[in-house]
Amino acid sequence: MSPAHHFTLYTTKGLAPNGWKVMIVLEELGLDYHPVFLDFSKGEHKAEAHTQHNPNGRIPTLIDHKNGDLTVWESDAILTYLADKYDPAHKLSFARAEDKIHQLQWLFFQASGQGPYFGQAGWFLFFASEKLPSAIERYQKEVIRVLGVLEKALSSVPSSASAPAPASAHGGVPYLVGGKASVADLSFILWNEIAVSRLVKDFEGFDFGRDFPATYKWHTALTGRPAVEKVLEMWRATL
Amino acid sequence: MSPAHHFTLYTTKGLAPNGWKVMIVLEELGLDYHPVFLDFSKGEHKAEAHTQHNPNGRIPTLIDHKNGDLTVWESDAILTYLADKYDPAHKLSFARAEDKIHQLQWLFFQASGQGPYFGQAGWFLFFASEKLPSAIERYQKEVIRVLGVLEKALSSVPSSASAPAPASAHGGVPYLVGGKASVADLSFILWNEIAVSRLVKDFEGFDFGRDFPATYKWHTALTGRPAVEKVLEMWRATL
Repeated sequence: MSPAHHFTLYTTKGLAPNGWKVMIVLEELGLDYHPVFLDFSKGEHKAEAHTQHNPNGRIPTLIDHKNGDLTVWESDAILTYLADKYDPAHKLSFARAEDKIHQLQWLFFQASGQGPYFGQAGWFLFFASEKLPSAIERYQKEVIRVLGVLEKALSSVPSSASAPAPASAHGGVPYLVGGKASVADLSFILWNEIAVSRLVKDFEGFDFGRDFPATYKWHTALTGRPAVEKVLEMWRATL
Repeated sequence: MSPAHHFTLYTTKGLAPNGWKVMIVLEELGLDYHPVFLDFSKGEHKAEAHTQHNPNGRIPTLIDHKNGDLTVWESDAILTYLADKYDPAHKLSFARAEDKIHQLQWLFFQASGQGPYFGQAGWFLFFASEKLPSAIERYQKEVIRVLGVLEKALSSVPSSASAPAPASAHGGVPYLVGGKASVADLSFILWNEIAVSRLVKDFEGFDFGRDFPATYKWHTALTGRPAVEKVLEMWRATL
């Protein structure tokens, strides 16, 4: 711990996206944090020094030294915590209750629909000791399906209250909630970056910009934000 | 839609746990809802009548007719919405900010750590056309690991602020947050029930009560709640 800083962030170097996801939001909000990079090959994430804070033994884990050392794990719970407590101007979040619940809805879709399935695609493609083509195909198809869900949401202006704002409201870039980039959009960046560069790059003639034009535009706008560029550069330097 | 009721809940019959999970909380809070059981074999979840409300084409989807037909999908976002808006007495939720964020943390662990992995165990055990022992083993081991995370949280009284209250505070039954059953605890019931009865029943001599005593006690207390018993009975009648 580093009480000299506002936050300690337990994370790790390399592909695992969820620590970098939290760093994006810390950087976007200009918050002061000390990253502790746990070495998974030495089992540091499963050691008591970390699991005393997080019984799941996974990263990220955030400790807020300006709030009684309050500890939060689960990356999208951390994003919600930072937005609720440290984004009073609603730069990346919302004041209206309806927008707040839709921000949370998309964070849950990221946590349950994108992360685990993109992660399984990565596992069966690159890490499993046995090559299982039917498992690889199952998860690559799910990556494509999830990109399709994002595309449907980002390219439509439905009548329901859960709809994203029309693209015309913000320079042609669509966002998931309330017409602006929020922690909900930012939560998807890392796994989408891994998906298009690695998981489905060669899957049945995949072409991000042609197949998912609204999602491509959205992802490109998000990755062009200075705070996001900075974190993606740090991330790539560890790969 | 049934504006005669407070809520319309799009869900489905059978094993899929996430609609039943929402019904448990609606029943616990005594809220009036009309369940629409979509027939997945006819693709009703992927039809426009449903996807106009939920671009993910999965269940559950909740429409609140007393809040401008606000639509929320993702089961744990729905649980948070119901707790925030319709549990002012904090029967199943919390007033303190620290407890609220830990409730959300455990909901994210349920959504990202329990649901998808238990679901993959079910897929490779019972539905995949090809039997893949290494995939089955991967996910059965993950079921056991997740039960171990719950056991660690429920059986310890750590010093950190993210700790559950001591078991002694509530008749010997431990809970995840703030010393009482909340939507965080309720969110785990269905998949744990499926796990112990089907997914790991015969896995390496698995014995729920012996291997995970605190989790067994917690799960038994939760499934004995009248609202939970009612929904589990409805659920079993559709299996």
